[in-house]
Amino acid sequence: MSNPVLVEVTRGKIVESRHRGLVVAVDGDGKTVFSLGDTDAAVFPRSACKAMQALPLMETGAADAYGFGNRELALACSSHNGEPEHVALAAAMLSAAGQDVSVLECGEHWSFSQETLIAQARTLQHPAQLHNNCSGKHAGFICACCHGGQETSGYVDYDHPLQREIRGVMEALTGAALGEDNCGIDGCSIPTYAVPLKGLAHGFAKMATGTGLESMRAKASRRLIEACMAEPFYVAGTKRACTRLMQAAPGRIFAKTGAEGVFCAAIPEKGIAIALKCEDGTTRAAEAMIAATLARFFTNEPDLHANLMAQANHTMKNWNGLAVGDVRVTGAFAA
Amino acid sequence: MSNPVLVEVTRGKIVESRHRGLVVAVDGDGKTVFSLGDTDAAVFPRSACKAMQALPLMETGAADAYGFGNRELALACSSHNGEPEHVALAAAMLSAAGQDVSVLECGEHWSFSQETLIAQARTLQHPAQLHNNCSGKHAGFICACCHGGQETSGYVDYDHPLQREIRGVMEALTGAALGEDNCGIDGCSIPTYAVPLKGLAHGFAKMATGTGLESMRAKASRRLIEACMAEPFYVAGTKRACTRLMQAAPGRIFAKTGAEGVFCAAIPEKGIAIALKCEDGTTRAAEAMIAATLARFFTNEPDLHANLMAQANHTMKNWNGLAVGDVRVTGAFAA
Repeated sequence: MSNPVLVEVTRGKIVESRHRGLVVAVDGDGKTVFSLGDTDAAVFPRSACKAMQALPLMETGAADAYGFGNRELALACSSHNGEPEHVALAAAMLSAAGQDVSVLECGEHWSFSQETLIAQARTLQHPAQLHNNCSGKHAGFICACCHGGQETSGYVDYDHPLQREIRGVMEALTGAALGEDNCGIDGCSIPTYAVPLKGLAHGFAKMATGTGLESMRAKASRRLIEACMAEPFYVAGTKRACTRLMQAAPGRIFAKTGAEGVFCAAIPEKGIAIALKCEDGTTRAAEAMIAATLARFFTNEPDLHANLMAQANHTMKNWNGLAVGDVRVTGAFAA
Repeated sequence: MSNPVLVEVTRGKIVESRHRGLVVAVDGDGKTVFSLGDTDAAVFPRSACKAMQALPLMETGAADAYGFGNRELALACSSHNGEPEHVALAAAMLSAAGQDVSVLECGEHWSFSQETLIAQARTLQHPAQLHNNCSGKHAGFICACCHGGQETSGYVDYDHPLQREIRGVMEALTGAALGEDNCGIDGCSIPTYAVPLKGLAHGFAKMATGTGLESMRAKASRRLIEACMAEPFYVAGTKRACTRLMQAAPGRIFAKTGAEGVFCAAIPEKGIAIALKCEDGTTRAAEAMIAATLARFFTNEPDLHANLMAQANHTMKNWNGLAVGDVRVTGAFAA
């Protein structure tokens, strides 16, 4: 089946590029409340599932033992820009567990944010692992290992106890069987598992509502999602979509992106969660799709609806500041 | 009609993202020799047609009057990285016409190449218009205006004599009627016109073969294409696809990319040219598509064929240097 065109990019009066995708919103029972495209298809959640991967940090008691508040928990679920605040907090989390940057196994890269990259280039010879967009998640991994008495070395490996634990958490949340056959290696070297899009959404709906979760997991899930909603800058950073979406409705929307055009979100008060993937992996399209999908649930709040739709549909300007075209969602979202 | 999936991006054993596209190769008479997808669809060539836009620089006699050689002509057809050699040569071209950076109307941006951007950030407070990837094309425009006695101010505007001349050149080459209805504004503020993909390919086939062109245009076209093939670094830069494709067969392959997933190429000795667009505008996919299409014409040269296919199909590594998946063209190219 061909997934529908969900985002168009125009220039002048003409559609220049088209993005297809699959989108699903489900409630805590896994009932679909909105869907577009083949939502049974398996997708790698990539970084969109970091809040799921942070559950061991909570459930082992490590987060409480190290005194982590909303910012640390948000950073553990983040794909951050590597701005100074992100880097410093990741270092502080490692320090709380008596560790430092040398135990990280995520690799090094310059910031994906051009503004931050320029600042980094002017002050650093080379980025360190703390600048990796996943350093907060990895710092959380290290804390979970240290508090639980696990060896930190090799914590990214498929067979390390932490990754086995995460695999179990994700199987329980998504309802998908995870193993070598649907496993890939993520950018930061940990395992990532392709799961049906609907299962991914259901996992976040369980986290947001507590439906079907044992009490400790329900509480840990709620705590992580609330931390992200309370500190959206620490989930992403300046000008980033995750941050802007959560800032649009403080404490009411959770949103997290993943590489290759994935986005997950939850609206706890509505009891629903969303998962989507742009078929071609493009970020600009995934961002438009998640904003438009979220907007569907706020038609009775005109200002919030308009804010979200302005994130979905926006004008592109060229180097001279001239409006040259638009990114816009298609009629599929109005259905 | 749905354009076919032409490029897949894998992770582990699973296809993570898919890119659709349209591809056509034609001869000098406009006869299609290979095609995939809806090749009658209108696409904005964007920077892929810079060699067409450079024809007035040749045909007015400006290039000869200012003593331009292969490097200057290649830069006039380029989307360069803003490396020091590119910036210096664009400045020298302006200087030959008695002008400087202040006459440019292309706008300013940091290099799209991360390596160059880092170097720029360490030496510049802010990029200048000479760093714009289009500065060579714009320097060529200024030279054409100055030599022809045209006002340079407003040379990017739809109604400026230079843009009218370029519109006429492109209509003659592509066979498409160009006007307000199929006009958009490009990143560097000049008009860009959506033309049927097949017409775009035919225009380059005419340039590469001279078929149907009057003698002066045939000679000017040949000269520009030969200049690009002789100086591929000046058409793009370090590690860039255009440069690597032309280096694969020195003096035998012309290749030029454009924004939003467009690529054009020509193989003069085979009498053909290629135009393609990735439906979703993604560069990685357009690069794979053009390499695979070019490879089809060199099946009798195993080393060159292998070189091109290695540019089409390649492994992606993560921040730790681990192989995580592949970019690969689909079976559509084998047909």
